[in-house]
Amino acid sequence: MIGDGQSRFTINGKPIFHFAGTSTFSEYIVIHVGCLAKINPEAPLDKVCVLSCGISTGLGATLNVAKPKKGSTVAIFGLGAVGLAAMEGARMAGASRIIGVDLNPAKYEQAKKFGCTDFVNPKDHTKPVQEVLVEMTNGGVDRAVECTGHIDAMIAAFECVHDGWGVAVLVGVPHKEAVFKTYPMNFLNERTLKGTFFGNYKPRTDLPEVVEMYMRKELELEKFITHSVPFSQINTAFDLMLKGEGLRCIMRMDQ
Amino acid sequence: MIGDGQSRFTINGKPIFHFAGTSTFSEYIVIHVGCLAKINPEAPLDKVCVLSCGISTGLGATLNVAKPKKGSTVAIFGLGAVGLAAMEGARMAGASRIIGVDLNPAKYEQAKKFGCTDFVNPKDHTKPVQEVLVEMTNGGVDRAVECTGHIDAMIAAFECVHDGWGVAVLVGVPHKEAVFKTYPMNFLNERTLKGTFFGNYKPRTDLPEVVEMYMRKELELEKFITHSVPFSQINTAFDLMLKGEGLRCIMRMDQ
Repeated sequence: MIGDGQSRFTINGKPIFHFAGTSTFSEYIVIHVGCLAKINPEAPLDKVCVLSCGISTGLGATLNVAKPKKGSTVAIFGLGAVGLAAMEGARMAGASRIIGVDLNPAKYEQAKKFGCTDFVNPKDHTKPVQEVLVEMTNGGVDRAVECTGHIDAMIAAFECVHDGWGVAVLVGVPHKEAVFKTYPMNFLNERTLKGTFFGNYKPRTDLPEVVEMYMRKELELEKFITHSVPFSQINTAFDLMLKGEGLRCIMRMDQ
Repeated sequence: MIGDGQSRFTINGKPIFHFAGTSTFSEYIVIHVGCLAKINPEAPLDKVCVLSCGISTGLGATLNVAKPKKGSTVAIFGLGAVGLAAMEGARMAGASRIIGVDLNPAKYEQAKKFGCTDFVNPKDHTKPVQEVLVEMTNGGVDRAVECTGHIDAMIAAFECVHDGWGVAVLVGVPHKEAVFKTYPMNFLNERTLKGTFFGNYKPRTDLPEVVEMYMRKELELEKFITHSVPFSQINTAFDLMLKGEGLRCIMRMDQ
């Protein structure tokens, strides 16, 4: 809820809350003006609808916060839709080596479409994954983006960046009791640790430009859209999400 | 020791090590070319000799790493020479509010000369000092620089910066077993944590410009030089340092 603290939905007189101020599975909706963004009218709504929030969050974490230089090495922790969007940002920024880190080896094939050049499964190693990454990159990656929300991955993402210039970005939402721990010498060697929310995009003013990235064919949104179902099959979409079998499923409201 | 791993000093055939590759209390010295910086020949050596390393470390932590904007609020943890140099950087950057944090209330008077507008002694409060700082700045400081090396101060420096844009910089060298701990949500609210070594200055190429800052009267070095003794009284200089009675003591080699 935004501004006045009120929900725009009710059912039988009881308020229904909006996730992130907008969420709806209805044909018509009343939302706060602060949650509206005016985008290019040429943009296909059945594609750009995925931009808020998962894709923008990952994309912005890389493009707005990690800011890898052309030719740099980037590690992405967690290869769900948010992690793959972070990877898409690394590809768009011209990273020369993009290392995907995930516990599920099946993720590698899909990640290749997003520019993944190397895959590391922490389960394949006896030493901590940050040490594996430091060894395979001769001192550490230039940038790391954490998209799992698991505290060990957060710590590993920070500890795998290079002394002197490495930047790690935290995106995943951790358990509320999770505690980030590291030796402070890791900071004194001139590393940076940042976190981000919605990829540091301000939706109302910045989303139109993300849509333009897609229109200019820089951002390849189609790779994220693995399924499409009519609204009558909404539960199929939930099943796909829960089984982790797709990235994004579009619901067609006109059917 | 630099490059070849050899010391340039011996005494009775045994090597003597150089702190930071250069330190000496001798009239003549042989150092590695990588440790030499060519500075403005007009610069008074009895002033600019203090630039390496304590003053530059604190100054650079603020100017090169924290980078406060004009008008911003900066907290400095620890008001020794390094912390006061960090404060001098905040003053030079045009910070409008500079909060000194130290356990010793006597430090406040001296700190005022470096631009300190507010003083907080953690011992005067029952709540953690980061909460005190967040309250007195209506949400947190724009920048914090930690110059004590104490792990609690490091954590407080990070936790007192403002959501959305706050940057904390760690300068102090911690105990090797100290562990930095915080809730990762503090990062996700778009804060940044960085560490620095020698204020991110590259001495050979960057020190000449720090000397120029002094020559242009932007950097007020005289405030750091509280004592001066002839070389024959070197032990007086050590006593002053150990008692914490001065900031920097110059030794005059010609006496």
